[in-house]
Amino acid sequence: MKAAVCHQGEFSVEDRPVPTPGPGQVLLRVVRAGICGSDLHARQHADELAALGTDLGYEAIMRPEQHIVLGHEFLGELVSYGTKTRRKWKPGTRIVALPMVKHGDEIHMTGFDQDAPGAFAEYVVVQEAFAFEVPKGVPDELAAFTEPLAVAWHAVRRGEVGRRPAIVIGCGPIGLAIILMLKAAGVKTIVASDFSAARRELARQCGATVVVDPREQSPWTAYKQPGPVGSITELADFGLTAVGRMRAVPLLPWGHLLRAGDRLGAAPSGPVVFECVGVPGVMDQIFAAAPVRSRIVGVGVCMEPDRMRTVLALNKEIELRFVFAYDPEEFAHALHLIASGKVDPTPLHTGTVGLGELSQAFSDLGDPERHAKILVDPTAR
Amino acid sequence: MKAAVCHQGEFSVEDRPVPTPGPGQVLLRVVRAGICGSDLHARQHADELAALGTDLGYEAIMRPEQHIVLGHEFLGELVSYGTKTRRKWKPGTRIVALPMVKHGDEIHMTGFDQDAPGAFAEYVVVQEAFAFEVPKGVPDELAAFTEPLAVAWHAVRRGEVGRRPAIVIGCGPIGLAIILMLKAAGVKTIVASDFSAARRELARQCGATVVVDPREQSPWTAYKQPGPVGSITELADFGLTAVGRMRAVPLLPWGHLLRAGDRLGAAPSGPVVFECVGVPGVMDQIFAAAPVRSRIVGVGVCMEPDRMRTVLALNKEIELRFVFAYDPEEFAHALHLIASGKVDPTPLHTGTVGLGELSQAFSDLGDPERHAKILVDPTAR
Repeated sequence: MKAAVCHQGEFSVEDRPVPTPGPGQVLLRVVRAGICGSDLHARQHADELAALGTDLGYEAIMRPEQHIVLGHEFLGELVSYGTKTRRKWKPGTRIVALPMVKHGDEIHMTGFDQDAPGAFAEYVVVQEAFAFEVPKGVPDELAAFTEPLAVAWHAVRRGEVGRRPAIVIGCGPIGLAIILMLKAAGVKTIVASDFSAARRELARQCGATVVVDPREQSPWTAYKQPGPVGSITELADFGLTAVGRMRAVPLLPWGHLLRAGDRLGAAPSGPVVFECVGVPGVMDQIFAAAPVRSRIVGVGVCMEPDRMRTVLALNKEIELRFVFAYDPEEFAHALHLIASGKVDPTPLHTGTVGLGELSQAFSDLGDPERHAKILVDPTAR
Repeated sequence: MKAAVCHQGEFSVEDRPVPTPGPGQVLLRVVRAGICGSDLHARQHADELAALGTDLGYEAIMRPEQHIVLGHEFLGELVSYGTKTRRKWKPGTRIVALPMVKHGDEIHMTGFDQDAPGAFAEYVVVQEAFAFEVPKGVPDELAAFTEPLAVAWHAVRRGEVGRRPAIVIGCGPIGLAIILMLKAAGVKTIVASDFSAARRELARQCGATVVVDPREQSPWTAYKQPGPVGSITELADFGLTAVGRMRAVPLLPWGHLLRAGDRLGAAPSGPVVFECVGVPGVMDQIFAAAPVRSRIVGVGVCMEPDRMRTVLALNKEIELRFVFAYDPEEFAHALHLIASGKVDPTPLHTGTVGLGELSQAFSDLGDPERHAKILVDPTAR
């Protein structure tokens, strides 16, 4: 089969034997595979991934000198079964699956591990237990978004936004997917912030109620303006004034008492902030600017050590929830949301390429004005 | 009145006029005042406090060149009332109060603000609305611990430990108070870690079920040993193996599936970790060592910018809740716990000094082998 192999940061399309599904595994013919920010990082910084793997005890993760087939977001058609499988699907059934396979008792991350080749190839092996059938009538291009939307759905669930306003910092593919999921979850105030005009336009299409260019407007005050934000502004205003007018942050548990006379009561809650940038310094900026009792959901992967003034977060009683991936139920739910039309990732899809164009596609993705998500079609010539 | 005035890091006992309570305020004669770690910091690093105040919009916080009366943990006897007060207490009534006073619409932090002198003096002014009567029969030395125990109670509440094991990193006065409160809250597994043998002994007296010297034993595995930890070890073991044997951290939402066959389900929860050190680097160490889905309660105040590998916290889905102070209900509850005997801070009380001995007491507190909490008795000569 044809596979795009990454070695020392360079892609080459090679002929490889079609993989054989092991016990509990199935073989898929890849229909579409998405290019993820993690792929861009893995291509250029396999060394950092290796160091992380060592820190976390995941020794099998890719090393720079290895020949790796990337691709962990994919849709495929069932070809054949390995041993110890339930075989409930006919050949040709469209399948999405969690990007992990088991070798004995070990888990390997599909697309980041030389023992678990990814979907930038004509065929990929998945674990039957982590595979889901795509309902008929769902376009391939949408079903291929199941994995990144599962990441977003997990982040939104962990964020427990409720009636609080949501602020999305960074509108890359995951930030945009989170906006889609916030809208699907019925969140009324969704503020999106990005330096790129194109990304801000996509954020609007995905359902952001307030979109700001942080060079011109603060995302922290934007949702206080007259706009489609309804009574939630009151809550936000409460949190914000605790930072601003009341000058009461160092006294946060008591600050609200000032305005409520001398009555006792709980401190106000700030917005739920989704950090989708993952670049050093951003978290510190959020600590400095976020209202009292904000909840930050850490989604962006910052591979370098980050520096932050935790004392600011402490005085504001900021809560920080780091999120990673999703569980299989969330993955299945993301597929359901796409299939039912409740979530439409179409705005994210900005291009489709063949295996031979991966190198170009990876560099094109560096320009936020041009692209959000590029899908790979291994049959394209 | 006599007051210990701090200027450029030096204490001097000066004669000052007895303060006059303003509207809504009452005057107390100070019976006991505790020395807090924040006082030690404020004495030597008022410049850092000032910078923090600026960052947080609290301009009134103490500056190095000012003459400040520290002391925000105190017990006093009611002397007189200002205007607009309810006057429900007789003179001589023993009172504890939140360390904040209002000047018009502004809040000032008692003991950290030249406009709100603290309790290292013969008299102190408090806000009647934030004052509470100490029930008869409660020894002065115990009632004086209301404020630091309120800090600990707030941290334990925000920690929502439930049936998870608790790990207290750093057994200074706040770490010890948190151990007291965890015990009062019925937490069965309380691991305490400190380099100081004396502090570890106090942790034992406060109710820690497992006490470790981090040089000799890891707090992260200590509570898995045979010991008074009961079935909670199962939960902890689950979290820990997800880091260790399963080598599944990068796959955390799925890691547990390995052991549970291929059933779907939620990821395990790790322990609740109370970070009570507040020194750069500690949070990063916790990120590196803590089990999957640990909840870290950030209690220690780290005044310098801290550096951490957030990617480790992200891959483990660590939750970080920064906590600050308490609300008035928690303050009142801390007093109730002391008065009812449910919590006994006696082990924390390692000395009592007069106003003239503050300088010596502050340096003595630098030695964890000698002291935990020193109380000030302004009448002592």
